[in-house]
Amino acid sequence: MTVTSPRTPAVASADQLSTAAEHTGPLRVGLLGCGVVGSQVARMILSRSDDVRARVGRPVELAGIAVAHPDRPRARLPQDLFTADAHALAARDDIDIVVEVIGGIDPAYELIMTAIEHGSSVVTANKALLAAHGHEIYAAADAHGVDVYYEAAVAGAIPIVRPLRESLVGDEIRRVMGIVNGTTNYILDKMTTEGVSFDRALSEAQRLGYAESDPTADVEGYDAAAKAAILASLAFHTRVRGTQVHREGITGITPEDIQAAQGMGCVIKLLAICEMEPEGVSVRVHPALVPQEHPLAGIRGANNAIFVEAREAGHLMFMGPGAGGSPTASAVMGDLVTVARNRARGVAGPPQAIFGDVPVASMGTVHTRFQLSIQVSDRPGILSQVASIFAKHGVSLQTVQQSALEGAGKEDGWSATLRMVVHETRESDFEACLAELAGSPIVNGEPRFIRVEGM
Amino acid sequence: MTVTSPRTPAVASADQLSTAAEHTGPLRVGLLGCGVVGSQVARMILSRSDDVRARVGRPVELAGIAVAHPDRPRARLPQDLFTADAHALAARDDIDIVVEVIGGIDPAYELIMTAIEHGSSVVTANKALLAAHGHEIYAAADAHGVDVYYEAAVAGAIPIVRPLRESLVGDEIRRVMGIVNGTTNYILDKMTTEGVSFDRALSEAQRLGYAESDPTADVEGYDAAAKAAILASLAFHTRVRGTQVHREGITGITPEDIQAAQGMGCVIKLLAICEMEPEGVSVRVHPALVPQEHPLAGIRGANNAIFVEAREAGHLMFMGPGAGGSPTASAVMGDLVTVARNRARGVAGPPQAIFGDVPVASMGTVHTRFQLSIQVSDRPGILSQVASIFAKHGVSLQTVQQSALEGAGKEDGWSATLRMVVHETRESDFEACLAELAGSPIVNGEPRFIRVEGM
Repeated sequence: MTVTSPRTPAVASADQLSTAAEHTGPLRVGLLGCGVVGSQVARMILSRSDDVRARVGRPVELAGIAVAHPDRPRARLPQDLFTADAHALAARDDIDIVVEVIGGIDPAYELIMTAIEHGSSVVTANKALLAAHGHEIYAAADAHGVDVYYEAAVAGAIPIVRPLRESLVGDEIRRVMGIVNGTTNYILDKMTTEGVSFDRALSEAQRLGYAESDPTADVEGYDAAAKAAILASLAFHTRVRGTQVHREGITGITPEDIQAAQGMGCVIKLLAICEMEPEGVSVRVHPALVPQEHPLAGIRGANNAIFVEAREAGHLMFMGPGAGGSPTASAVMGDLVTVARNRARGVAGPPQAIFGDVPVASMGTVHTRFQLSIQVSDRPGILSQVASIFAKHGVSLQTVQQSALEGAGKEDGWSATLRMVVHETRESDFEACLAELAGSPIVNGEPRFIRVEGM
Repeated sequence: MTVTSPRTPAVASADQLSTAAEHTGPLRVGLLGCGVVGSQVARMILSRSDDVRARVGRPVELAGIAVAHPDRPRARLPQDLFTADAHALAARDDIDIVVEVIGGIDPAYELIMTAIEHGSSVVTANKALLAAHGHEIYAAADAHGVDVYYEAAVAGAIPIVRPLRESLVGDEIRRVMGIVNGTTNYILDKMTTEGVSFDRALSEAQRLGYAESDPTADVEGYDAAAKAAILASLAFHTRVRGTQVHREGITGITPEDIQAAQGMGCVIKLLAICEMEPEGVSVRVHPALVPQEHPLAGIRGANNAIFVEAREAGHLMFMGPGAGGSPTASAVMGDLVTVARNRARGVAGPPQAIFGDVPVASMGTVHTRFQLSIQVSDRPGILSQVASIFAKHGVSLQTVQQSALEGAGKEDGWSATLRMVVHETRESDFEACLAELAGSPIVNGEPRFIRVEGM
């Protein structure tokens, strides 16, 4: 490891580097997991070795692959690389970089900490782990002077971690609003374009492999919440865990909701939103109405997109495939090359830079806009009674639309549906207003509501 | 400068860094130019000093600002920082980083080379300079072990240089297609949404400050060509100069062209396209029909967007404001923080990595699709005669649409307009076909054509 100073070449042209590489040993990679993503990463390390070597300045070689069944034959991957002992691989001192693509918290957490303690840099695509224990991992990496890169953990191949961590680091990010789960975007898109039910769209997504047989993590927003925690931590340089994220899924969205949204010139999207509120960082995942003119409204199928509002840069959006073996592997490879280049020069990349310990704002303190609908009976004075309930809670109405009630409730004399949009209001005030509406004799059943974003 | 190795902390948490900063001197910045962008950069360095210090690990201070008229009073900037001697500022050995926002080639080129030779890292927003002399500058920076960062030179605040240089470095980029000039996008957008003429849209753009009083650099595609050269060099790790870029502007686009495009479900955009062809890298700037479903079609007003097609990552798009003082300054600040952090750790960032000296393909070898229209007289057999000319040159027709001719030519018996779309064809074959059509007695005047992209 040589000293590099601004007066002596710290970097050289790639040709020089390739020559230099003859005199220095290869960088050795331990791969934990060889599933959909892992097998693609292994393939790319082997097939693109010349290219990677030219970019890194030293050869990068695959030293071992830990899998549950090392004896299972695998096409195009040397059998002798495989081992069942992931812990031994993570602890090997002749390994420079550990790539973790097992997923889940256990044993990934222990394996990554072991790798860091043995001086290896880490590349991971593990959003669940980073959302739960990211800050312990970043701290350990800082303490051991190694890198932890995780571009693949959020929005697949879309470069968003680097832009937030480096490109916008001189700016002040105000809001990050993203479609970070491809499964739910596919389902909502299909409900919108084909008018089908949630169940119908879900089974189609399952048939095409966009959704798991147990879709809970996607449709209930757990996956998006983990990514939201990672994005909020990055954007606001603080600590947000997945469990601190307010989370609502899309299982309750009906074709009628979608239609009503279209009537308002909006589409329904499942959004992950991180923003700075007076009370702290608000981090939430929920379905929302998004105006058709908003860039996020145009994100189709299983794509992901992240919309960033920064003080100086203005509005930026990044979009692309949010999942899949090759896109995720591409993000892992980008990190692997960067981490390897840092190793070749004996340094680590920028630290996670956690310097603002901003509290996470409770949902009640968040300010958003809502659209809600209630069933009433079409009698004179009803509207003024409803309006007075809103006024009482300081919730101001922007639009009110009355339509004849169709179907359930009609025969009991509930003849009209009132659909209202309210101006930006404090969530707790809106909840109080909802509760009073729900309990009022002039309203039939529970009000339905959905948040409005991007207007 | 201390040795950093994976076993000793190369980086520390930001709090540690801020403490460490007490014991190390500040990093000193020389600012060349203080116009729309420069004054914003100066403001941000001064107003965000605590934040920047926490992210860099050392204070970053403004050591001098070179301007033409140092005595002119400037709000909120200390008068004693200003100097008229840019060369002396660039050469100061007590300066760590030189930020160049003068623009143009002379004297910016000489000033940047001077700064590099004196061991300073450089941040620049100068696209014209990088398109002309980028590779000499990158080579000098490599030789002196300093950084040259230029995120602001392409697409303003949109992080595109870092993603191409780092995030996608493990992937294989096949095509980069972008809207990289806000002025022309504003003009074409206005012509599309309001049906106004080019001249009308241009004067509106000038009134709003989106276009210069001399709009040549924008409307003739010179600005986009410079950015295309930078993008192609980055994406394909080779050397492309602005003068090697095939360039066509938008001054010839008529409201009729826009209407015809809409009739085909397309919009007209000025595109910068870099792609790998069998004969080399094709780099070109020209107006093109883009299908309304394509993400680039939705880019409104003066925004920029860059669409990247990579082998593994698939299709990615980055969008945002392409110009303006604050967005450009945000990109400069992001680079400044990264470069300063590298200096604080005594290293330089990844080299420009030019390792493929790929030739630039001549336009004749490029394969694209075209839409063209000709005036003919509506007689039996005309279509077969036209079709035979296409067949002779191996250009295959995808669609043919005949409509009654309106206006000019009608009275001379030219009764019909044939509008055709051809399948992907080699440009030279299409040109030969055009030439024969133009010379043929069955065709009135010159055929009109426009390329079709993103289908």
